[in-house]
Amino acid sequence: MKQPIIYSTRPFRDEFIKQIQTFAPNYQFKTELTPAELSQVEISLGWNREFQSELLASNNLKWVQSISAGVDTLPLEEFSKHDILLSNGSGIHSESIAEHLMGVIFGYSRGLFQAQKAQVSQNWLGSSVHYQAIQNKKLLIIGTGRIGKMVAQRAEVFGMEIYGINTTGRPVEHIKETFPLAKLKEVLPTMDIVINILPLTEQTNGLFNQELFTFFSPTALFINVGRGPSVKTNELIDALKQKKLAFAALDVFEEEPLPENSPLWSMENVLITPHIAGLTPHFQTKFMDIFLKNLESYLSTQTLVVNQVQLLSGY
Amino acid sequence: MKQPIIYSTRPFRDEFIKQIQTFAPNYQFKTELTPAELSQVEISLGWNREFQSELLASNNLKWVQSISAGVDTLPLEEFSKHDILLSNGSGIHSESIAEHLMGVIFGYSRGLFQAQKAQVSQNWLGSSVHYQAIQNKKLLIIGTGRIGKMVAQRAEVFGMEIYGINTTGRPVEHIKETFPLAKLKEVLPTMDIVINILPLTEQTNGLFNQELFTFFSPTALFINVGRGPSVKTNELIDALKQKKLAFAALDVFEEEPLPENSPLWSMENVLITPHIAGLTPHFQTKFMDIFLKNLESYLSTQTLVVNQVQLLSGY
Repeated sequence: MKQPIIYSTRPFRDEFIKQIQTFAPNYQFKTELTPAELSQVEISLGWNREFQSELLASNNLKWVQSISAGVDTLPLEEFSKHDILLSNGSGIHSESIAEHLMGVIFGYSRGLFQAQKAQVSQNWLGSSVHYQAIQNKKLLIIGTGRIGKMVAQRAEVFGMEIYGINTTGRPVEHIKETFPLAKLKEVLPTMDIVINILPLTEQTNGLFNQELFTFFSPTALFINVGRGPSVKTNELIDALKQKKLAFAALDVFEEEPLPENSPLWSMENVLITPHIAGLTPHFQTKFMDIFLKNLESYLSTQTLVVNQVQLLSGY
Repeated sequence: MKQPIIYSTRPFRDEFIKQIQTFAPNYQFKTELTPAELSQVEISLGWNREFQSELLASNNLKWVQSISAGVDTLPLEEFSKHDILLSNGSGIHSESIAEHLMGVIFGYSRGLFQAQKAQVSQNWLGSSVHYQAIQNKKLLIIGTGRIGKMVAQRAEVFGMEIYGINTTGRPVEHIKETFPLAKLKEVLPTMDIVINILPLTEQTNGLFNQELFTFFSPTALFINVGRGPSVKTNELIDALKQKKLAFAALDVFEEEPLPENSPLWSMENVLITPHIAGLTPHFQTKFMDIFLKNLESYLSTQTLVVNQVQLLSGY
């Protein structure tokens, strides 16, 4: 019988490939596949949509280790049908996203983005800059998973008042009060800063729509580092024009890269970052920390110990 | 005898004026002075240089409560000669400056400033943005007073490695290791982020000069929220051009507003903010918290209990 393959959609440093080979001496590690090899893939690191039908048809694929935390672009139903295990990259990008969020919050509230714009025209704004104090500001974290908790812990030390939204409203460390998603509209009007970190599911697709924006405070800062399709872009644009909220800092979009003709690019009250919140220079180390733990467990008992995704809920 | 005057260089809300009058019923509170009244001023909130010679000549001025933390622009020797007490505004601006510093650190390290520049030309940088992780980065806080401590406490929760410089090298809470100012050159080369929060004194005037910049790491971020004249502007410009350091975020300058013809305005590796780090919407409340404590003590025992400045050291 041919050797089973661990296929990776991206290269890894030699040190990590050696570690994989030590854990799984009976497997081949490959980042390129010939057509004949497709049916030998048992484990996939990342997901290559090009090979999707072959990988699923072979019935040899047993486990997909996703790179990202979000798995909404993967064929979850097919995985379920074929009894394929799925684990995600939750935690790899958390620290980066928490740092990004703090940069956005303080950059906006301390007038740094405004000052940088004025710098281009040698314009010394002085105390006419728009600034506010972060201490005692109300922060709403929509999605209180790993990233949400990390953000809460960091925001706490700045004296922010932290609220959270999750599916059931279960309490979360560092968060003063949590509410179920169904209460979002009741909670929104008093919030100064609103962060979306929700995964993309049927419930969260298009969640931030025209109606929801009417519940925002006109002075609110909205930050989306979750998923692009959770926000109806055109309805956000209208809401920003009508000053239903004060500012939006967007890292993810319905269409990426953001189309050149999007009105968002030139809006005064928008900061566009090109899906960079999760970038980390330590990606390989953090990814392998998850993958190798799962690999050891998979090889001995066909189970995963870190970040297994429930295929039916999608996170 | 005429009623002594509490003179303020700036107006305060009625609630605060009433509190002053309750504490000091025998004094008049004034924000405008006739020439005849100058000699009646016993307490000055802030310092009006226009009235300097009259206020000092009268021998009735006993106490100056400065608005800012830095008192380098005040006539300290004259105050000393006339036995005038001096207290400063240290603490009023600390929280704001700590927030500003975090905005600069994360805005720079997460590529937010770069993304905002690219936004103008609808340029989606994607993962080509220049980013780095803040966790484990080495932060040097030069000046470990109230603001320095506050910054250290906040930087700690992001997993930064925090070092400090103060006059004697005395240890400071939340700071891993502190060094005396004399060791600055030895400490600088390994630091990723260097913050100047020193007061302006003979020792710190022109401290950041051509020679000192040769000790910076070429990847270092330098932030000045201390005093403008601590940095030799032209020598910093040369150092930035020669890549002796990576980036400078400057809130204070030798000349303010920064002259229109300054090369700093258009430098790629410079963020200019117009002396806004300390701005706080809660100025009056925070200032009165200091002033009223001192007023009570001054009236009963002619001493100050908060933020008294040693006139000879200047801080």
